[in-house]
Amino acid sequence: MDHTAIIATNGQLATPYAKTAHGLIRGSSRYEILGVIDSPTAGKDAGEVLDGVHRAVPIFASLQAACAGLDRKPGNYIIGYAAPGGQLPEAYRGGIVEALEAGLTVVSGMHQFLSEDPEFAEAARKSGAAIYDVRKRKAPLHFWNGTVLSVGVPRLAVLGTDCAVGKRTTARILVETCLRHNLRAEFISTGQTGWLQGARHGFILDATLNDFVCGELEHAIVSAAAERALDLLVLEGQSALRHPAGPCGAEFIVSGGARAVILQHAPGRSHFEGYEKFGLRIPPVSEEIQLIRLLGAQTLAIALNGERLSPAALRKEQARLAEETGVPVVLPLEDGLDALVPQIRSFLSEEAAA
Amino acid sequence: MDHTAIIATNGQLATPYAKTAHGLIRGSSRYEILGVIDSPTAGKDAGEVLDGVHRAVPIFASLQAACAGLDRKPGNYIIGYAAPGGQLPEAYRGGIVEALEAGLTVVSGMHQFLSEDPEFAEAARKSGAAIYDVRKRKAPLHFWNGTVLSVGVPRLAVLGTDCAVGKRTTARILVETCLRHNLRAEFISTGQTGWLQGARHGFILDATLNDFVCGELEHAIVSAAAERALDLLVLEGQSALRHPAGPCGAEFIVSGGARAVILQHAPGRSHFEGYEKFGLRIPPVSEEIQLIRLLGAQTLAIALNGERLSPAALRKEQARLAEETGVPVVLPLEDGLDALVPQIRSFLSEEAAA
Repeated sequence: MDHTAIIATNGQLATPYAKTAHGLIRGSSRYEILGVIDSPTAGKDAGEVLDGVHRAVPIFASLQAACAGLDRKPGNYIIGYAAPGGQLPEAYRGGIVEALEAGLTVVSGMHQFLSEDPEFAEAARKSGAAIYDVRKRKAPLHFWNGTVLSVGVPRLAVLGTDCAVGKRTTARILVETCLRHNLRAEFISTGQTGWLQGARHGFILDATLNDFVCGELEHAIVSAAAERALDLLVLEGQSALRHPAGPCGAEFIVSGGARAVILQHAPGRSHFEGYEKFGLRIPPVSEEIQLIRLLGAQTLAIALNGERLSPAALRKEQARLAEETGVPVVLPLEDGLDALVPQIRSFLSEEAAA
Repeated sequence: MDHTAIIATNGQLATPYAKTAHGLIRGSSRYEILGVIDSPTAGKDAGEVLDGVHRAVPIFASLQAACAGLDRKPGNYIIGYAAPGGQLPEAYRGGIVEALEAGLTVVSGMHQFLSEDPEFAEAARKSGAAIYDVRKRKAPLHFWNGTVLSVGVPRLAVLGTDCAVGKRTTARILVETCLRHNLRAEFISTGQTGWLQGARHGFILDATLNDFVCGELEHAIVSAAAERALDLLVLEGQSALRHPAGPCGAEFIVSGGARAVILQHAPGRSHFEGYEKFGLRIPPVSEEIQLIRLLGAQTLAIALNGERLSPAALRKEQARLAEETGVPVVLPLEDGLDALVPQIRSFLSEEAAA
């Protein structure tokens, strides 16, 4: 199987709507990312567009330009778009047909299954190309049965105060940091991007029938813990506990048994991303910590996403939130998470003693 | 279409696992319930077995006995079983095949689709009978888009501290009570039993892909409010905010905009029903009220389910909880909900002023 891939973002690379692309540009063990198709940013490096870090992932204006500019023809064409509702924007259709005609496997995390779209199915049939719908239901699903209660490995969930705020990225940095400090940590992925990045344990929460969400979470935790000796499982949160379009997070604490939380927050955002016009404000972090406590977990740290803030303003928010909440506040992208290792170790000791 | 029906409970009528049957015995505008098949209780009246109230719903030992004993042959055979996981117990299979062979439409709320089961599909094909899987996904699903924010009709959610605790029944009694007091109330159903009972607005929450739960809830609210002038929408809650097998409830407040809650509780239960062996205790009601407040709603009343308690012990718990929480505590099955009408009116005034 060919694991090389090109990511299509259709002019949205520099927006939060391309968060699947952003995750893959940061790293994937499932796919080898050869480049990105995004005409407004063509010619630049995708890592530099993302966060100023050169990652040797060139951007092209079209699939044709990519095939001409790359040493190897990519095997997969990944839709790098992810947005509320999971419906494919019309503008992506032409590129998908072109990729299928060129024989690339189209990989999609949309709720709408591209393999069931008559135009795409026909293009795939003609060229012999495949369509892989990541969110398509895989049977049988697991129902929660309490086996997670016997898992001895402590769980920590990375929750957030909003969608697309950096939960997965912070979770990945945390796992890497733990490994560097000789703590055997494993990541439990709960979104399509985590799957595309090659996470070995997890499921796609938002594409799961509601009744099976907690059973699938339990199954992922139990499977990961059974596979090898571990010190910590890091659960990727979804949405936010009070997100109007779909609250989520209690599952990880109540059903997954996470007793610690890292709360991801973007102090530069006042309103839920994409819902500004409704005047829906993100609730205060201190109240969120109270809610997490009632659900059954302690907030070990607040991790900040610095978007829309100058470095100085971000540092000021960091100090202000630490003062207000009494909880350590960290900047994962700027400083890494090494500073949190003592808190993690102390949480692991508490859990071992419990 | 023939709306007459017989309910199969396979010996489980007197257990909480037959909660779909219990709801239908209490009342359905979608189906006319002619009888119940349940051999251990055969010969009795199903209403009397349920809660001591005669409802002229005879119980038979078998489908054959039912057809012989009834004036009319029922058109539908409804699986009256509902339990965590939604899988059909093996013991029901024989009865289903028999019903299909006799030409009855089999109606099922299982997650496992009976229409896709080879044995049932073959039996249906031979006799020409139909299989109706209530939980089968109906496209297209709605994603939350904020239209619910412009709905002027106040919403009240009936949440619970456990599963199968009486949320739907209390919601139905509340709607009837409001109607008697000239308050135009409408019920929003969120389970398969509500659908089977004939609710005109709602969806089946636990069979919905997670990402669409809040959009389907919004759609049901918006549709009901658009149809006719209303004073109150009563939302049927599911599960419990901290139920280990699948927390639920925040959706109604955060995404559905319910600003009031009636909290259904069974003081005779110490542990989550069905999870006693794990030692999972139901959290204190006062803490649940605090959690509901943080999510954005006030608890107007606590409604008690008297199971496992003598009438005197139940009254004692009623007084104790009212003292402890400062919230009115009512017994819907014993006393009705007329006593709550002043609280409802005062909530409606607050909402009108907001």
